[in-house]
Amino acid sequence: MQDLPRQRWALTLSYDGSRFFGWQKQADGLPTVQEALETALSRIACEPITVTVAGRTDTGVHASAQVVHFDTAANRQPQAWIRGVNAHLPEGVAVWQAQQTAPHFHARFDAYGRHYRYLLQSSPVRSPLLAGRAGWTHYPLNLDTMRQAAALLEGEHDFSSFRAAQCQAKSPVKTLYRAEISGSSEWIKLDLHGNAFLHHMVRNIMGALVYVGSGRLSVAEFEALIAARSRLQAPPTFMPDGLYLTGVDYPPEFGIVRPPLPEWL
Amino acid sequence: MQDLPRQRWALTLSYDGSRFFGWQKQADGLPTVQEALETALSRIACEPITVTVAGRTDTGVHASAQVVHFDTAANRQPQAWIRGVNAHLPEGVAVWQAQQTAPHFHARFDAYGRHYRYLLQSSPVRSPLLAGRAGWTHYPLNLDTMRQAAALLEGEHDFSSFRAAQCQAKSPVKTLYRAEISGSSEWIKLDLHGNAFLHHMVRNIMGALVYVGSGRLSVAEFEALIAARSRLQAPPTFMPDGLYLTGVDYPPEFGIVRPPLPEWL
Repeated sequence: MQDLPRQRWALTLSYDGSRFFGWQKQADGLPTVQEALETALSRIACEPITVTVAGRTDTGVHASAQVVHFDTAANRQPQAWIRGVNAHLPEGVAVWQAQQTAPHFHARFDAYGRHYRYLLQSSPVRSPLLAGRAGWTHYPLNLDTMRQAAALLEGEHDFSSFRAAQCQAKSPVKTLYRAEISGSSEWIKLDLHGNAFLHHMVRNIMGALVYVGSGRLSVAEFEALIAARSRLQAPPTFMPDGLYLTGVDYPPEFGIVRPPLPEWL
Repeated sequence: MQDLPRQRWALTLSYDGSRFFGWQKQADGLPTVQEALETALSRIACEPITVTVAGRTDTGVHASAQVVHFDTAANRQPQAWIRGVNAHLPEGVAVWQAQQTAPHFHARFDAYGRHYRYLLQSSPVRSPLLAGRAGWTHYPLNLDTMRQAAALLEGEHDFSSFRAAQCQAKSPVKTLYRAEISGSSEWIKLDLHGNAFLHHMVRNIMGALVYVGSGRLSVAEFEALIAARSRLQAPPTFMPDGLYLTGVDYPPEFGIVRPPLPEWL
């Protein structure tokens, strides 16, 4: 077989993490986003396709704008990689954008920033309408102290206090450009924008911020927790339900546009 | 056994209609909201409980504030009918409010108004994040013409053009106090407030308004459709996915408060 010229494509996709056992393909055949996407892409390409993702997500974690790249010898229009692929994807995942990109583009290594939103409901009764799509606490929360604590996270820090034991990152030192609490007393939003994130970092931060909001941790204690660089005294990891990967930043030359946040989120 | 004094209770509840085969108990044991609620209430009451609902909903239709009443000889605090019952309910349904009410209160016959919201996404790709919780059309929609058409629905009309064949209402004449389109070009909201609704009325109205918004029906044709009082020329019933019962109006003496709309809806 002769070597056909290969094209590199970038896709932006959205998925409901509660329907999958995480991003990464599993040896035991459990449904994962990667497996669903590669199966659908391979059908459209008529050859086996392997994707490289900007950042893996855990079971239960959603994405409104995840990015992958893949190579193929198949010559297709962008609409084939969107509508054609979507026709082969299960209900919980969909491709939004497809573009042919530079052969040296790399979805993971070229990403210089990631955006996450955590949607949290604080209410005596958990809403069944956003079950699996929002975190929940029955504690009333003080958004002012949560805002003060979140602001302490901005900048370059050793985030070991929010790092999962199984994290494989080379360094716990990351930079948060933005850590912001918004919303109402019932529906609280945490937005994090950073150069990179440790494993479980957003859920661990959310867990600690809920302790601050409910008065179980003072802002000073939260500051000491960051400085401690240890999970020994840290509040537990918060549930994945309300966590959304909402964007990945790339150098503009690759032309990969971050879509706006869904209005309802 | 002696006759214990019976109390009448009113509950406000919320449910994700995509997880149930409609409201009404089915002979074949399919999961319905009524069956789940009566089972949970009977456990807390330690006696069989039957509920009467303000308005039945079809498979796939949600409620943020449905109302029921029931009678019981069990003497329980409101929290037992909320937290106790919720502990026995499946994930897709939850009780928000419980209050002892007048013995003559009737959830259906005392309701003098109902509120519905339809949440619709207009986008080339359907969001997997609100699958089952929002309607969807790939057509771009003109909100101005939809607003003009919706306004024609306000007031007292014979709504036969939006009435399902199997509708059992005595009269097709109902009053809409409010019919309003809001939102953005991607996420469109239809709010209807009326004294009563025919079977499939909101979904049939939504179907016709999508025809107006996509230019397949003019505002004048929509007006003629109302006047025709027949489904023969009417656009098809729209999908249930985006339909929410958001409130029921009762005389203030019963003290049944309509909760605010969820902020994300």
